[in-house]
Order: sequence, then structure tokens, then C-alpha cells
Amino acid sequence: MADRRPERLAATREALHRAHLDALLVTSLPNIRYLTGFSGTSALLLVGPRELLLLTDFRYETQVAEEIGDFARVSIQSQSLWKGLWTALTQAPGITTIGFESTQLLHRDFQRLLEQGTRWQWRPTTDMVESLRERKDADEVAAISDAAEVAVAALGATIPLVRAGMTELEVAGTLERELRIAGSEGFPFPTIVASGGRSALPHARSSTRELATGDLLLVDFGAIVRGYCSDITRTFVIGAADERQREEFEVVREANALAVAGVRPGMSGRDADALARDYIHLRGHGPRFGHSLGHGLGLEVHEAPRLARTSEAVLPENAVVTIEPGVYVPSWGGIRIEDDVLLRAGGALVLTDFPRELLELT
Amino acid sequence: MADRRPERLAATREALHRAHLDALLVTSLPNIRYLTGFSGTSALLLVGPRELLLLTDFRYETQVAEEIGDFARVSIQSQSLWKGLWTALTQAPGITTIGFESTQLLHRDFQRLLEQGTRWQWRPTTDMVESLRERKDADEVAAISDAAEVAVAALGATIPLVRAGMTELEVAGTLERELRIAGSEGFPFPTIVASGGRSALPHARSSTRELATGDLLLVDFGAIVRGYCSDITRTFVIGAADERQREEFEVVREANALAVAGVRPGMSGRDADALARDYIHLRGHGPRFGHSLGHGLGLEVHEAPRLARTSEAVLPENAVVTIEPGVYVPSWGGIRIEDDVLLRAGGALVLTDFPRELLELT
Repeated sequence: MADRRPERLAATREALHRAHLDALLVTSLPNIRYLTGFSGTSALLLVGPRELLLLTDFRYETQVAEEIGDFARVSIQSQSLWKGLWTALTQAPGITTIGFESTQLLHRDFQRLLEQGTRWQWRPTTDMVESLRERKDADEVAAISDAAEVAVAALGATIPLVRAGMTELEVAGTLERELRIAGSEGFPFPTIVASGGRSALPHARSSTRELATGDLLLVDFGAIVRGYCSDITRTFVIGAADERQREEFEVVREANALAVAGVRPGMSGRDADALARDYIHLRGHGPRFGHSLGHGLGLEVHEAPRLARTSEAVLPENAVVTIEPGVYVPSWGGIRIEDDVLLRAGGALVLTDFPRELLELT
Repeated sequence: MADRRPERLAATREALHRAHLDALLVTSLPNIRYLTGFSGTSALLLVGPRELLLLTDFRYETQVAEEIGDFARVSIQSQSLWKGLWTALTQAPGITTIGFESTQLLHRDFQRLLEQGTRWQWRPTTDMVESLRERKDADEVAAISDAAEVAVAALGATIPLVRAGMTELEVAGTLERELRIAGSEGFPFPTIVASGGRSALPHARSSTRELATGDLLLVDFGAIVRGYCSDITRTFVIGAADERQREEFEVVREANALAVAGVRPGMSGRDADALARDYIHLRGHGPRFGHSLGHGLGLEVHEAPRLARTSEAVLPENAVVTIEPGVYVPSWGGIRIEDDVLLRAGGALVLTDFPRELLELT
């Protein structure tokens, strides 16, 4: 793999220059990983025109050396990372106006900045690194694609084992074990296995409810490979589907297909969302699709861009996004079909290669 | 189970009164769950002398009704929770000075408060609800104890299956499946399965490394039951242990036993930490125990109180804390033995009932 860090750092420095900032204090861990490769859970990063300083604690001494090499100056702190930051800034006299990440800094830590008095000027920034992360490079696409393959393989290994009488938690456990065997580094969000009426809860997790014949079974989960996430949903029926289940399933399947076929870079998030929403509305299920069509995927499982009614922002080329229309009927159940797609100039490339027709599990 | 919410709410209102605040804006999701029972991932809570208002979004409409009942006024927002908050505050003329949770509010959201102008006075608070959460009531102890039993059962079912040649990820997957079968609602933190030299990394996760005969195998994980977390570590040897492994293991086992026997409510976090640290130092391994002895457990896997050199705070009665001494030697490996204990007046009650002697897995 090519080392993409120099170009990412150069782009960040250009953004700093445009914003008339001497430096950026990066507190978002995914942003720190994107810029430096460091994957630990305790770090501060200072990016200046010439400076690149990573502060972390003693627990990561070995790991940071392996991941960073000599790309950044590393400072290991035995107590507070903030004390190390003040020391480093004092030794960088050219830095006076410093951006911080407004959506990635707690008020308590913002107070720490102010407690340093008028020595430095602190300016809130938003999405300075996040906006770079929207467009994926080839290595990032490969990682997300591998994470999608791991998820598909795990689902394929799990579905033949699912039976009426199993609990949702048992299905989740089987799936999570298969994810590990296929190489997932972790779980990007709590696995959703929701059956029967619980499938109508868009944010159900997994419970001790036993699967029964005739149930809808909604499974929403992801994998992590080289730090990058996938996110996939399929909905099944335990036993033979009834007529209503077939009808509603077809609405969602068609909405997914229309959106995958129609989504393009250059489109607004709102227009992409409408590809599925207008069809669901036309079929008389408008109010039953309560959430957005999708979201960006990368080092985080929810990142920019958004495919939503309220998003005017344009979808950039080489973003990876989810396409996840659904229909939910309280107490009856819910159906969602979610794929991950790469937005190429010519159209969407689907990364989650798992059947989309209705599967009856018997 | 008794409904503990009224007494928790009363204690919060007393704290508000003492702090001369008209209300508290709660943004921490664990604090919201503690005070109201709502377990969703999108919520704001306003606690006033008479007011108790929970704002959440449409995705949680069914769930919030089930979890809250009529204990709080619930407001379902279709767009921004913040807009709903402004409307509610405008209709509560007695509320002008409002506390917010400084360690639980992002700078961006703090700006939202200021953007409302001088209509309300916003005051940072810290640990107002967290300090109530330190002392566990009987239902909380029962939940943590159940989570500890789930973790112990899962480890017991996993260990006979572990063999040289398995990858760390496969061991993690087996353990996570057993956690689900035993009833865990989720994973409180990413499972650590670290073998050989990787066991010396205090924050290793799990990798594709294959277990080899002679390896140390460190397993650190937890379960969640009724929202409450457990957290346990055991270290094994694949095959027969060598002399050095036995010696270092005995140091850690004895440090764990001394700390469990000696820890008491009323002790400072620093004195509790010293119970294990002084012994490890005496045995000549002082610099190899780089982290703190333990932390509180509850709705979060890391909460107050801390058992650490830097913590002067007193351990309260009925706190549940981890006791997790360790010894780490770069490239050779690491050993940690972690238990969860309830701090009763007479001494610590151990909740994680799994053998502490050296187990050789063959």
C-alpha cells in the first residue's frame, strides 16, 4: 500500500492556510488515525505548517512506534496529554492562532484551552479533516470492500444455522463469531437482531426473544478491516412468508434497487434520498420510512456525506455510502435492505454482494 | 424490582438546590438512563424542581413509552432535540439559571446554549449525577453480579475449546458467542485476546496472530446485563508454563489477593492502589505495573471511583470496582488478573468467581 499520509497532511495544511490558522489541534481519534496511522484511544495531534506532533500516553509506547514510524514527532506522556501540549506549544513561537475541532472537543477540554489565558487564540473549526475523509482513496476503498466481504461471508455462514426457537441473542452470537473467524477486528456498532414486532423498532438491539415461524427477522451489523467499517442489513422470514410480508418486502427491495441504480456523485444528499423515498411514497408507504436513506462509511460507521431530506450537500466522487430504505409498521414488523456502495462517476459500485430477494429460512 | 427513579431524582434535585441552580440539562446518556430508565442513544433531559422532561427522536417513540411510562414528560422531536428544548424552556418561566454537564457536552453544543443569548444563564457542572452513581443500590449490584456471572460462564465455556493454532480473533469470536448465549446484551468494550509478546501491550485488541505452545494468553472482556457492565481478565499459558511465567504469575496473583483482602470503603483511591502496587514494587516489578489498580463499574465500564496513585477521593460504601494488577515485560509478555468487587463495610465481596491459579491449556 502507498503511504497516503503525506498527501492527507498536505491537504490539511492547505485548509489551515485558507482558514488563516497557524495550527490545528486534532482531538478526534478517527481524524488522528487518518492523518498519522495511530489507532490508539488516547491522543492529541498538533498540525502546524512544519509541526506534526502526536501526544499519547505510556500504554501506547510500543504501538505508536510501530504505527507512526518517523512520520510524526511522538511525545509519550506519563500523566496529562494537555500538559505535554502546553510545553510543546511554548516551544513553537510561530504558532499563536490555533483551530480546534468544535464537534470533537468536550466543554471541559475547551475550558482547558481558555485557562491558558491570552497566550494563544483558539478558533472553533468544523469538518476540516472530516471533509477530506469523504473521498476515499484506493486503499480505503479496498479496506471497506474487504470489510463488506467479511460481513457477507459471516452472514452467509450464519443464515443456514438460524432456526425457530433460537433467541435473537443466539443469532447475534453466531453471527459475531463468524465475523471474527472471517477476520473482523471488531464490531462497528451493536449488532441488531430484531424479530417479529421488534423488527419495527429502527434501533432495536438483540434480546432474549425466541424466533417463531412466520416472524420477520431483521439483521443489521458490520465488520471492521484495517480500521474501516462495513454496514449491511438484510431481512428474512422464518418459515414461509405471507402475502403482506411479500408485498412490503418488494416495496423495499425495489426502493433499494432504484436508489442503487440512480445514485451519482454530484447529486445532493436530498436528491439521492428521494430516489427511494419517492417510490416508497408512491406505493403508499411514505410515513413508514421514518429515517434517512443512508450515510457515509469509513473509519467511522456514520460519517459524511448524508443521504437525507435535510442534506443539501453534494455527494462527492469516491465517497462510500449506505443505501438503506426501510418500511416499519408498529407491532407488525419492519423490513430494511441496506447495501454499501462506492460512488464512481459512472454510477454506484455495490460492495455488499449478498442476495436481495426474500429468503425464507426453514 | 423497586422503582429507584424517584429517590435518584430527589437526590439530583437536592444537589441542584445546593448548587443554586434552577435546573440541570443532562446530556450524558448513562446519566439519563440512571435517572429515567430510557436506554436510547438520542436524548436530552431537563431536571427542574418540578420539571422532568425527556426529549428524544421519532425512532424511539415506542421504546421510550415502554421504558419511561409516566415517570417523565416525554417530547418526541422530528428534527432537532435542541429546538424542542428551547420551546420547553420558554414555557418554564421559573427556570433561568441552568447547569450543564461540562464533561458530557461538546463545544458545538455549548455554542448552541450561548446562541440563545442572555435569556438563560448557563453554568458548567461536573459529576452531579455521576457522584450519585458511585454507590450502587441492591438492584444495581444484582445486575452487575449477573453480568459478572455471564462473563464467568462464557469464559468457562470458551477455555476448554482454546488450542494452539487458533488465532486471537477466533478465541475472541468463541468467547463473544458464549457471552451472547449466556445472555449478554452487548460488549462493554472491545474484547482483548492478546497472546505471546502481544500480551505486554496493555491495550492490545485481538489480531490474526496464532496461539503457539508456550504463549501467555491474556483475555480481558466483559458482559452487559440490564444495562450494567462486568469486566474481567484472566491470563493463561498455552501448554506447560515455564519457570519465569510461574514466578511472574504468582506476583500478580498475590497482588490481586492482597488488594481484594485489603480494600475497604473509606480508603482513598491512592491507598487502595498501593495495596497491590507496594507488593509488586517489593517483589522488584514496580516499573512493570504501569496502569492503575482499578475503576468503578456500573452503567459505564469506566466510572468513578478510581483506584489510582493520583486519586485522593475516598471509596464509598457499595461502590463496585475492578481490582486488576498486572506485570508487563516488553516482547516477553504480560500478566493481569482482574476481578470485580463490591465494597461493603466489612470488606470486598468478589463478584467474578473464576479460578485465579495458573491454568495451563493443553
